[in-house]
Amino acid sequence: MSNYKTLKEEAFLANLEIKRHNLAIYTWGNVSAFDPYKSVLAIKPSGVLYDDLTPDSMVVLDLEGKIVEGRLRPSSDTETHRVLYLEFPGIRGVAHTHSTYAVAWAQAGKPIPVFGTTHADHVTREIPCAGFMSPEETKNNYEYETGKLIVKTFKENKIDPANIKMVLVSGHGPFTWGGSAGDSIYNSVVLEEISKMALLTVTINPGAFPLPEHIMMKHWERKHGKDAYYGQTP
Amino acid sequence: MSNYKTLKEEAFLANLEIKRHNLAIYTWGNVSAFDPYKSVLAIKPSGVLYDDLTPDSMVVLDLEGKIVEGRLRPSSDTETHRVLYLEFPGIRGVAHTHSTYAVAWAQAGKPIPVFGTTHADHVTREIPCAGFMSPEETKNNYEYETGKLIVKTFKENKIDPANIKMVLVSGHGPFTWGGSAGDSIYNSVVLEEISKMALLTVTINPGAFPLPEHIMMKHWERKHGKDAYYGQTP
Amino acid sequence: MSNYKTLKEEAFLANLEIKRHNLAIYTWGNVSAFDPYKSVLAIKPSGVLYDDLTPDSMVVLDLEGKIVEGRLRPSSDTETHRVLYLEFPGIRGVAHTHSTYAVAWAQAGKPIPVFGTTHADHVTREIPCAGFMSPEETKNNYEYETGKLIVKTFKENKIDPANIKMVLVSGHGPFTWGGSAGDSIYNSVVLEEISKMALLTVTINPGAFPLPEHIMMKHWERKHGKDAYYGQTP
Amino acid sequence: MSNYKTLKEEAFLANLEIKRHNLAIYTWGNVSAFDPYKSVLAIKPSGVLYDDLTPDSMVVLDLEGKIVEGRLRPSSDTETHRVLYLEFPGIRGVAHTHSTYAVAWAQAGKPIPVFGTTHADHVTREIPCAGFMSPEETKNNYEYETGKLIVKTFKENKIDPANIKMVLVSGHGPFTWGGSAGDSIYNSVVLEEISKMALLTVTINPGAFPLPEHIMMKHWERKHGKDAYYGQTP
Repeated sequence: MSNYKTLKEEAFLANLEIKRHNLAIYTWGNVSAFDPYKSVLAIKPSGVLYDDLTPDSMVVLDLEGKIVEGRLRPSSDTETHRVLYLEFPGIRGVAHTHSTYAVAWAQAGKPIPVFGTTHADHVTREIPCAGFMSPEETKNNYEYETGKLIVKTFKENKIDPANIKMVLVSGHGPFTWGGSAGDSIYNSVVLEEISKMALLTVTINPGAFPLPEHIMMKHWERKHGKDAYYGQTP
Repeated sequence: MSNYKTLKEEAFLANLEIKRHNLAIYTWGNVSAFDPYKSVLAIKPSGVLYDDLTPDSMVVLDLEGKIVEGRLRPSSDTETHRVLYLEFPGIRGVAHTHSTYAVAWAQAGKPIPVFGTTHADHVTREIPCAGFMSPEETKNNYEYETGKLIVKTFKENKIDPANIKMVLVSGHGPFTWGGSAGDSIYNSVVLEEISKMALLTVTINPGAFPLPEHIMMKHWERKHGKDAYYGQTP
Repeated sequence: MSNYKTLKEEAFLANLEIKRHNLAIYTWGNVSAFDPYKSVLAIKPSGVLYDDLTPDSMVVLDLEGKIVEGRLRPSSDTETHRVLYLEFPGIRGVAHTHSTYAVAWAQAGKPIPVFGTTHADHVTREIPCAGFMSPEETKNNYEYETGKLIVKTFKENKIDPANIKMVLVSGHGPFTWGGSAGDSIYNSVVLEEISKMALLTVTINPGAFPLPEHIMMKHWERKHGKDAYYGQTP
Repeated sequence: MSNYKTLKEEAFLANLEIKRHNLAIYTWGNVSAFDPYKSVLAIKPSGVLYDDLTPDSMVVLDLEGKIVEGRLRPSSDTETHRVLYLEFPGIRGVAHTHSTYAVAWAQAGKPIPVFGTTHADHVTREIPCAGFMSPEETKNNYEYETGKLIVKTFKENKIDPANIKMVLVSGHGPFTWGGSAGDSIYNSVVLEEISKMALLTVTINPGAFPLPEHIMMKHWERKHGKDAYYGQTP
């Protein structure tokens, strides 16, 4: 009997969302769930198709990266997830996909401007785009360094990961996080939709300007501010 | 037993069309139905997934914005719907979505030219694009002011909302209306298709010119004129 | 008992292909089947959703445009179909849709160049784009004049409708035809795919050049020439 | 009882993937499986819809192009497959489709740059784009010459087909191969996704630059190098 039944179930269900929302073909995306009390994360096994996943196939690791439960090799991106749990306080889920439009912005090496309220409903600044790591960093623990690169980007630009829960890594693709595994993959879906809308916006008007600050903040506040009035009170 | 059973059923069915036609992901769109005799509107509850909606979950409000029936909080956009019912005579349905291509035009801050007969079959001028409200207006009742902004745009440009049943709000997205809740969401589907066709048109030919006036009016007349001959006589 | 059971069944099945291949939303497309021996055509009724069609709902008309069987009003585009049957010898099916990418080329007012073998497998020249009719022609029998405009475009450019079975009408959309109703709607699907490929081609390379003549003719010949070797011998 | 039951079953299943992944409409793509011990290939019959395929409908040919089993005419592209099996050592599957975005790059006549890790996970250089054959070559065995053109492109550019398992043919479309029929069609799906991402990348940033060499090689190595750590050990 597993000690991590609930956590593995949460990770399993969030990974199924990747396929349901067409965020990756084959096995090109992974979600993890984190339990801050037990200090372990459950993540998708590497290279396994979404249709073949079961809750029990999830791999559980501690924050040193040691497997504590699971018969399969964990996602090759596990070290990136681990760094984010270590460095971004309070997050309980991380998602990484190769969703088409978000990857396009990452490959274009461009942050995504706040063109509209769809964006502002979730993020109150452009989606940051981390640069490339050095050849030296690449040689060592590449996936760990990917996580460090994200953290460095947030620190240098004074971005609070509790508010901005998504990032593009140049030439690679999107990483997102949140208060649960489900929340992290929800943010991946949102980012893909924002990415598509932004691309179409510059197609129509290459000189499109960002949303005025007062509209942006209003949309954020009505969903996330102290007097938020979106949705049902729990 | 509800006094608004039919109205709530109508609003419920029209909200399901949002998902069926992929006009919004998650909970990013809402439709209301209006009863001019009882002077009430029924609208989607805020933040509830389309798959979780029931006729009974619809919220009924009067034209002062007071809830007269319903256990849930109404859509955060309810005030915009309310203004449109107050100001646009005869309409019985309002829809708001974040459909991808219509949002792209709104984010680009551009009205959609009449490029073809698909457009002219429904609207005989460019789709208007309302501007931004002031910081002051944003602070007050934001959603109410969004409605006022739409009404002002129509008045200033002498547009008849009985003929032109759709609008873009800059940096936000589309609002549509019509003779019933179903008609209003039909117009949202039409607007999304027109938006996509128009974007692809300028991709092929950035200098594409609008449809000649005589073709535009002919298409409108054959569907909506006094000698209309499209469809079956009722 | 109907004298036109087979013809109506053929028209019915071909109309269903419009929805199956996403060539039109709601009721925005129609197919007809023609019987040259009885000199009648069977066509979709106007404004009826594809899901509500039955073989018996098809409307049968003679080549003077008189209804010979059917309780419903025929497609508003019937007169265009009628002209094509009168003027293009040997065709037995006509289809008209508002498929998104073909409409975009029509709205851009541009013929579609032969960019590749997908195009050459079906058509050995650019897809012609008919211009606009005059205000005077529009006032009279608009749909009849649309047919005449297509015929005029083919005559003036010496295009053989037995080989080139598709056309764009500027600002409107595609019309296609063929040896049966099924063949005509097959050509609509092909045209939509060619339209999308061509738009993406010029997005990548605005200066893309047409397929060399010898490759184009080879592809046509292997499918349609006297020594064609594509497919199974009947 | 067939001597090629397993090979035909493999070819059959791989052909079904064309439709499942929307790589071609109607009959516009074909996959073959190769048995190096019996020196035969099994391929889709020409012009047959994917829904109508059965394992037994596959056509088996030897490397001289002679049919050794099967009642139907083989794919018109069979000769291209045959050349690739003859010239590219070790491959056991070949796929050809008219997938939309890959065709767009082929029609644009452009190789696809390595814009990101999605590309580098599979191919460590731009996707080559073979040119056009001469009118003389076209007249002879066109499909055989298409194969020769691909082989020539690889030889002239010193590309190893054991590493680079995909190519565009100018004005035509993609060909892919691999260690099995399933692997070859997997590469077609990958190529289509890479093609779409690359088109969107240049739409956002026409001056987008390729992935740095050290990132590209790292991604390739982690999936295909001697210390690969992606996926499960068999």
